[in-house]
This record gives sequence, structure tokens and C-alpha cells, in this order.
Amino acid sequence: MSSAELDEMIKALSHPVRRDILYWLKQPELFFSDQQHPLSFGVCAGMIDQKAGLSQSTISAHLATLQRAGFISSKKVGQWNFFTRNEAVIQQFLTRLHEQL
Amino acid sequence: MSSAELDEMIKALSHPVRRDILYWLKQPELFFSDQQHPLSFGVCAGMIDQKAGLSQSTISAHLATLQRAGFISSKKVGQWNFFTRNEAVIQQFLTRLHEQL
Repeated sequence: MSSAELDEMIKALSHPVRRDILYWLKQPELFFSDQQHPLSFGVCAGMIDQKAGLSQSTISAHLATLQRAGFISSKKVGQWNFFTRNEAVIQQFLTRLHEQL
Repeated sequence: MSSAELDEMIKALSHPVRRDILYWLKQPELFFSDQQHPLSFGVCAGMIDQKAGLSQSTISAHLATLQRAGFISSKKVGQWNFFTRNEAVIQQFLTRLHEQL
């Protein structure tokens, strides 16, 4: 993880909605229990829009930022995009931040 | 620590020079052993300029950002400003980030 990558990851976390999304994705069965598709696919973007009470385009931009930073991955199933956390990357990030602070 | 305060703290860490400064201030006896004043005062801004190889005004702005975020404190002794880490705040921040991620 380079210093520039670390910068990008930290910036991705500097918005409360993006931190909320990561937190919700940590416990999908708690926050997205009403999703019709299996949660094993991940959480559908539409469910995240609804939970955040924000427009599709706003959430889509936040998801793209989190994905560029490496915190989440997406999987396309049919017409839907499902998102999951990259736990290994998140742990690596926290360890690196601990070391540097 | 409010969400807005957390935002400000995260933004303060999104620049590599600011992360370097925090890291150096963690071990002043290692990185600033040539300071004339006692390190118990903290580290003089001029020593940080020199270590970073950046101008006084640039470092001064970075130090102000870190101070606003609560990560460091300053003490004026004579004509010098000395900086120290706020370990309690840094630990609180890391704990909060761990909980939220």
C-alpha cells in the first residue's frame, strides 16, 4: 500500500455517508434484511440508496469512491449490482494507520 | 466526537506530510535529537520545517490543520512554538474508526 493509495483510502473515509455505507455493509443481515435477493450476493445498490435516503446518482458516486479506494467490491448479477466489503483491505488499512499514527 | 469532528480528523490525515509530522512527533528523541531546546517542551516548528524540507509557511499550515483536528497541541516558550502529540485524542480517534469500519 503506497502513500498515495493510503491518501486515497483516507479521503474515501472523510465523508460520513461513505463511512455509514461501510458500516451497514458490515452487517447486511441487520440493515438490509428486506432485500429480496440473497445477501450472499452482497447488497444491491438500490437498497443502499433507500437506506441512505439519497438519490441513486449520489450513492453511485459514493460507491465508486469506496470501490476505487479498494474498500468494497461489486458483482453484477442480471441487471443488479451487489456490493460487499473487502475485509482484508479494511484490516490492512487499519493496521497501516495504527503503525503510522 | 461528532461525525463532523471525525470528518475533520480524517481529512487532516489525508496528506502524507501531516502523517509524517505525527509519526515524527511520536519519537522526538529519534527524529529531533539535534534540537537545542529540551524535547520535553515538544518539537520546535523550525525543526519540523527542516526535517520535512519544506517552507515555514507550508509546515505552519499543516501544523494548524493537525492542531484544529485535535491531534497536536502547541506551547509558546519565548519566541518559539513547540508541538506535541495529543496521545489521548489519537487513541480515541483510532478506537472510533475501528468501531465504525
